Amino acid sequence: MNSSTPGQVLPGATSTAPETAGAVLAFDVGGTDMKVGIICGEPTADGAQLSDLQRHPTPLDGERSGDTVCARIVELTRDYQARHPELAISAVGVTVPGIVDEVNGVGVFSANLGWRDYPFTATLTEALGLPVAFGHDVSMAGEAEFRIGAAVGKRDVLILVIGTGIAGAVLCDGSRVAGDGYAGEIGHAMVPAPDGGLAILESIGSAGAIARRYAEAAGQPVDGARTVLARAGAGDAAARQVWDDAVNALAFSVAQCVSILGTETVVLGGGLSMAGPALFEPLAARVDALLSFHRRPQFVHAVLGENAGLIGSALKARTLIEPATDPAKASL
Amino acid sequence: MNSSTPGQVLPGATSTAPETAGAVLAFDVGGTDMKVGIICGEPTADGAQLSDLQRHPTPLDGERSGDTVCARIVELTRDYQARHPELAISAVGVTVPGIVDEVNGVGVFSANLGWRDYPFTATLTEALGLPVAFGHDVSMAGEAEFRIGAAVGKRDVLILVIGTGIAGAVLCDGSRVAGDGYAGEIGHAMVPAPDGGLAILESIGSAGAIARRYAEAAGQPVDGARTVLARAGAGDAAARQVWDDAVNALAFSVAQCVSILGTETVVLGGGLSMAGPALFEPLAARVDALLSFHRRPQFVHAVLGENAGLIGSALKARTLIEPATDPAKASL
Repeated sequence: MNSSTPGQVLPGATSTAPETAGAVLAFDVGGTDMKVGIICGEPTADGAQLSDLQRHPTPLDGERSGDTVCARIVELTRDYQARHPELAISAVGVTVPGIVDEVNGVGVFSANLGWRDYPFTATLTEALGLPVAFGHDVSMAGEAEFRIGAAVGKRDVLILVIGTGIAGAVLCDGSRVAGDGYAGEIGHAMVPAPDGGLAILESIGSAGAIARRYAEAAGQPVDGARTVLARAGAGDAAARQVWDDAVNALAFSVAQCVSILGTETVVLGGGLSMAGPALFEPLAARVDALLSFHRRPQFVHAVLGENAGLIGSALKARTLIEPATDPAKASL
Repeated sequence: MNSSTPGQVLPGATSTAPETAGAVLAFDVGGTDMKVGIICGEPTADGAQLSDLQRHPTPLDGERSGDTVCARIVELTRDYQARHPELAISAVGVTVPGIVDEVNGVGVFSANLGWRDYPFTATLTEALGLPVAFGHDVSMAGEAEFRIGAAVGKRDVLILVIGTGIAGAVLCDGSRVAGDGYAGEIGHAMVPAPDGGLAILESIGSAGAIARRYAEAAGQPVDGARTVLARAGAGDAAARQVWDDAVNALAFSVAQCVSILGTETVVLGGGLSMAGPALFEPLAARVDALLSFHRRPQFVHAVLGENAGLIGSALKARTLIEPATDPAKASL
């Protein structure tokens, strides 16, 4: 599966031209697949600089998955270098899920991938002989939305990526919050549950939860949250209840951020955000009802799509090479 | 009420000596009283640099309270200057409650004090002819705990000041979050209420709420949360329930911060924190139960006490004068 578009690779470039010295290879390692692509030049929101995008199975090996993933990243990097001799790949960006210590380049913990305290940056830097930018997948996607996407110019932002689960990234006073890798786990923050108890946000508010909860209520499987929304629109009371529960749970968590952090912009991404006004309008109304003197956040769509993590990874990787390759920025 | 301690004022200093050029006058304006005191030199956690501490009624005049408060601050500054000719007051620090735009020096809104968009820094700077540091009362108290108090060296901190109400301050990645003045309003964040609905944190978790809710449940007034705690310890079921409700509400909000921000340290101040282990131990246990893979925060006592706001205000005021008065720092 090679989606390389030759026209997106700078034509006629040589390995000594400044333009191609800015090429980075970005990896977004997920629980099932890992995506990889080349980014030539400064990324823009349309992703035009992304080329030769590929998707490969993530090689899982329990607690040794750090080693197997790194070995696969090295192998794929050699492939890309061999296939694109016209490009000088100057740095590699890698994002992974879980708890990530960006400062020390360590994958602290991933329930799905199995590693604990795996030294990604050190391992890959030594094996590749290239600078390596290592980060958390959703944090890097958030960084991309902050820098070139939906939240450009905003200082107090919550990004929610709502799909099978819910992941978040938080910008406060113009800086992304890392919390030593523990920030952004809003999908696992508690919300009041419809049964009167407490539940984690993603067990009520995610697209996956909407499908699951409706299937349980209706006694039949559905193919996704989109179908639940359609049935709610057609007058299905169980579907309406499940959808409203999701909106209430999401609104509760958004209102927490507004109260604690003064969040001014909420960026919604992931599959559920495709619901558009059916999500955005009741969510804004419910958040409004949960606030008093606080300012009201603006709700906007994520713009970078499913490659946001790759683009964010590339943005971070470019910070490792820019001073050396761009004379205009070298003095900054 | 003049608690001046001559020994705390640098003896024999003159207005041209560098030591006394570092003297600042700090005001902490509350809904009932305003506190004012001189701070000579770099503040330390024991407050030893604070002298001539006074308390005066806050002059309230509805929407014009910004003007009346500023006029009183100018009057008191002239008094202090006249009474301490040996000190050169080099800057003034002022903290107020409500929504505060620190960057532009504006009191955006205060429900208790009445102003809207009042330009404190501009008004006071012109009237006093001195640099003025303006900030939010609890944020400045938090800043003081971060810089010289209970949270020194910590990077991800929540401060809760629990008294009649609940106020908060948040440190993320080593920086205090301002959110354009809207951050820290955790006392007005929603929590699950004991009746199954939602309520704001301070309506369940504050010392004021504990006394009020117990009085309602028992049908008799109590003199404060301390008495409710004593009755809970003596087997009073209603007192026990109200206390547990408060702990649960506080734990819920703390766990939100841990999930969203990776909070590593929780500093508890205000009257309720004096309950000690009766508060800290069940609170830590309840927070632990609300978390899964997240790291667990450490709970510590605030150390700066009721003058934390004054000390924080002085710390901020000193940033306005240090470069000019300290040759060693002027080149920074």
